[in-house]
Amino acid sequence: MPRVISIDIDKSTHHIDIISENEFLTGGRALSSQTIAQLVPPAADPLGPFNILSFCNGILAGTTISNANRLSVGSKSPLTGTIKESNSGGTFAFQMGRLDIRNIIITGKRSDLKTWKVIHISKDGVHIEEGQDLATHGCYAKSELLVKRYGPSIAFAMIGPAAEHLMRSAAIAISDPQKQPARFCGRGGLGAVMASKGIQAIVVDAAQTSPVQPDDKELFKDISRAVSEQINTTPQTAKVFRTYGTAAMVDVAQGLGFLPTRNFSQGRFEYVEQINGQTLVDTISSREGEGKISHACMPGCLVQCSNVYPDKFGKRLVSPLEYETIGMMGPNLGIGDFDTIAELNYLANDCGVDTIEVGAAIGVAMHAGLADFGDGQAALSMMKEVREATILGKVIGAGAETTAKVLGVYQVPTAKGQAFPAYDPRALKGLAATYATSPMGADHTAGHTIRSQVEDHHSAVGQATASKMSQIATLQWDSLGFCYFIGSAVPDLSQICDLIKAVHSHEFLPEQIRRMAIKTLRLERDFNRKAGFGPAHDRLSEYFHISENVDTKTICDIPESEIEDLMNDEKLSQ
Amino acid sequence: MPRVISIDIDKSTHHIDIISENEFLTGGRALSSQTIAQLVPPAADPLGPFNILSFCNGILAGTTISNANRLSVGSKSPLTGTIKESNSGGTFAFQMGRLDIRNIIITGKRSDLKTWKVIHISKDGVHIEEGQDLATHGCYAKSELLVKRYGPSIAFAMIGPAAEHLMRSAAIAISDPQKQPARFCGRGGLGAVMASKGIQAIVVDAAQTSPVQPDDKELFKDISRAVSEQINTTPQTAKVFRTYGTAAMVDVAQGLGFLPTRNFSQGRFEYVEQINGQTLVDTISSREGEGKISHACMPGCLVQCSNVYPDKFGKRLVSPLEYETIGMMGPNLGIGDFDTIAELNYLANDCGVDTIEVGAAIGVAMHAGLADFGDGQAALSMMKEVREATILGKVIGAGAETTAKVLGVYQVPTAKGQAFPAYDPRALKGLAATYATSPMGADHTAGHTIRSQVEDHHSAVGQATASKMSQIATLQWDSLGFCYFIGSAVPDLSQICDLIKAVHSHEFLPEQIRRMAIKTLRLERDFNRKAGFGPAHDRLSEYFHISENVDTKTICDIPESEIEDLMNDEKLSQ
Repeated sequence: MPRVISIDIDKSTHHIDIISENEFLTGGRALSSQTIAQLVPPAADPLGPFNILSFCNGILAGTTISNANRLSVGSKSPLTGTIKESNSGGTFAFQMGRLDIRNIIITGKRSDLKTWKVIHISKDGVHIEEGQDLATHGCYAKSELLVKRYGPSIAFAMIGPAAEHLMRSAAIAISDPQKQPARFCGRGGLGAVMASKGIQAIVVDAAQTSPVQPDDKELFKDISRAVSEQINTTPQTAKVFRTYGTAAMVDVAQGLGFLPTRNFSQGRFEYVEQINGQTLVDTISSREGEGKISHACMPGCLVQCSNVYPDKFGKRLVSPLEYETIGMMGPNLGIGDFDTIAELNYLANDCGVDTIEVGAAIGVAMHAGLADFGDGQAALSMMKEVREATILGKVIGAGAETTAKVLGVYQVPTAKGQAFPAYDPRALKGLAATYATSPMGADHTAGHTIRSQVEDHHSAVGQATASKMSQIATLQWDSLGFCYFIGSAVPDLSQICDLIKAVHSHEFLPEQIRRMAIKTLRLERDFNRKAGFGPAHDRLSEYFHISENVDTKTICDIPESEIEDLMNDEKLSQ
Repeated sequence: MPRVISIDIDKSTHHIDIISENEFLTGGRALSSQTIAQLVPPAADPLGPFNILSFCNGILAGTTISNANRLSVGSKSPLTGTIKESNSGGTFAFQMGRLDIRNIIITGKRSDLKTWKVIHISKDGVHIEEGQDLATHGCYAKSELLVKRYGPSIAFAMIGPAAEHLMRSAAIAISDPQKQPARFCGRGGLGAVMASKGIQAIVVDAAQTSPVQPDDKELFKDISRAVSEQINTTPQTAKVFRTYGTAAMVDVAQGLGFLPTRNFSQGRFEYVEQINGQTLVDTISSREGEGKISHACMPGCLVQCSNVYPDKFGKRLVSPLEYETIGMMGPNLGIGDFDTIAELNYLANDCGVDTIEVGAAIGVAMHAGLADFGDGQAALSMMKEVREATILGKVIGAGAETTAKVLGVYQVPTAKGQAFPAYDPRALKGLAATYATSPMGADHTAGHTIRSQVEDHHSAVGQATASKMSQIATLQWDSLGFCYFIGSAVPDLSQICDLIKAVHSHEFLPEQIRRMAIKTLRLERDFNRKAGFGPAHDRLSEYFHISENVDTKTICDIPESEIEDLMNDEKLSQ
């Protein structure tokens, strides 16, 4: 049975519990949110002693099933003040699974923030060790130090220097298969929570263990073969994601006019052809060396939407270069070349900050006149200020909303204090509903609607319903510990249920998964209500309700009654 | 009948209404909060087009009755996000009264923030004029420019350069009898709201009008003579306030251990004798020249708690030097000399920022290590950065809570985003209840308890009740347009009712005043609930609930049930 490891960082103690029978089928976001709701007083200061961190994987973690090894990190967010699940690929959840761990809970607050710790977990147990030597290094250097100290078989969850300064855009970097700090629990500033507890890194090492073996090998082989085949033949996964990665979205965004351009003033970018999916593929292909068009972020993934972007000399510059970063550090800053965007991305990763949040914050700073839109050198210099933790760097690192407050900018792309990802909600209105109502604040991964059955993404009609359906569907995948990119290839959850049956001999029905998702959404909303959130917070920053996206001539105009309906817990299961 | 002037700043239009009969007895905070609740959507962005400003005086404004000419400015606060009444002495409310104006309402938002306006109101009407030449000047220079342009008989409400940068600690400077920008609607950042509407100053000129004359001259003479006598014979008003001003509080604070020292770490200051009331009096007295121990901030005031602090050469440095500023820019920064505190105060006034908020923010910055506590030159340099609107200056100008967010400081003295004034709520626990529950956020003037009948200011017993009584009592004075410093000399409101009868021939009973106060408190709370505030916000920042004031060994421990009770609208009239 999977285990729950609880670590009290004040006392340097831990204990290990076996997960309860009726929690066996609870994983990912369902489990992390349940843990937060149980253990964190809703009004707690996110960077105070009463907040906790919960690292959860899914029910099939530790197997090599494609897309099954996502990590959910739960906490109360210092960026939004809400409950938060920040989700990442990488190798951490997989190794947790191999070690038969479902949940790692960190409680307490180090009183002496001048010393740092590393938590090391292997089959030999849990050890809290000195981590002083890791401090102040960038994430890339830190990951090398970790591999040097703990060997090549580790996975890690790690903070960067931005978190050490308690910046509220600070992420938790997660190792990819090459031990690069390439995957991120980016949203919500959970890196700052980890730093507030004095933890530089959690290292898991599944050496001398094997991937989780299925109870029913035949059934497992049949279903996993079928799933693989579906992934390999569905155009979205086999072609679009595998070839272009998420960068395929650039042209869609330009077409529909939701590409965030110059602090979300425009929805289309005149230099879009320099930064779209095809140009990305062409650029990577034309440069010999370490570049890769397709790359798996976690063991067993067949979608391989990740990539490795090389510099002009073919050296790995950053991995992956994704749509969100392209949008927020490209057009949103008026920047139209991949090399600058990739360099910004590299610096953000090295600092350990969310590229969405910091991209939005730099956009706000440019809006305030600190630099011209399109000035890549100025953007790079601001990113370096984040790395050096200058006052301006700390302002930007505090996120878009704080940057706007400090610089006196009204046009700030946020909901519940968190920056919009790279989708202007005035031109992709399902996301207006999701940004406004998700317990997470503005987050496309909490209920995307780009593939929802709506008549017109520019119209408010049907968007609240589309958002609700997508919020629940996403929560299902997040709670199973799956990457939701599998969705187009595996539209029917009964195949996942069959896999669970094959691996664990547990019956789990699609309807139960749906109930788990709805229960989680209710519980997250309940936490938020107790933390002080109400209907007044279920909206975007005012500018987007009254000012048009100049390219689409649309504003956020989803009727308040539909937002209220969407927030009605009773109606969630309808 | 008093008039309401409504100005639409977008359209440069205005209209004038006569106040309705049943609003005749509503003034000050009751009227400003009623205006905000009626006209501002609770979820509006405080610096967006839907917020408004309402300048209200009291029922006896325009008369020369002592303490009767306070100004209440209402708005939705960009600092707290709550409804806000920011209160000031000075000459503005008096001249409004002489012009028979009860309320000046500003709506709209200038689209072009590159140009500035001045509103001029006299018996010749309302004129919206160019104010471009005022921009970027400090408040002292601006006030001279205004007097030069409009003549010596004016009163003004004016923003400073901090407001031009939309800093959320920006105040509205109000003229004193010497046309100095010496009185401030300091709390809540309402200067930034005024700036967001493109208004540099509102000038009122009551030239060629007379003070309001009573209907019943005999009754008026009797009562006002009695009130004057009481003020002149009550020790608190005639001696303590008149001699020492509010600086008398320094020794009380030291004695009880609530003197904020080094970012509210301690409650007693080792250099207290250098900055107490006696030393203030001695210093002013020993320097020949423009210094004054007693000074009236508004026409007719007999209390004269204000003062004029001269520099070493006898030149006026700042007026007044008050307890709040002494506490927040003295001990709170570890600074123990009046000349430095007065210089900080002068710079803050010239910028047009709240000395409490900025004092707290500099304390947080020192806590973060930006300078050593006690380094007066460093504090002055930070104030200059506010004046120059550098990035650090803007951070500090954004207030203590934003400063703490940017610099990663957990120990931040705030409630609902507003800095504690100079009373550590762990050692004056009635103020813990007031800070936590006042619709205004942390504000001693919203319900002071230093003179409440409680057994022990260090004990939680009875404090919620004391706070409730004081919140209502203060609201009575604020809604009458009176300075509540009259309270110790005029404990019985029936004298005020007699004055109203003498001046306006209106019957107004103490019980009606009380009902007006309670109605206002309910209405403010209702606005805040709709703006997104709930029980989770009715507390201080977490640090103060769990960490002791090292001198008194006390924490904020008012039982949650008592806070809930205090917030129960049904129980307000009990």
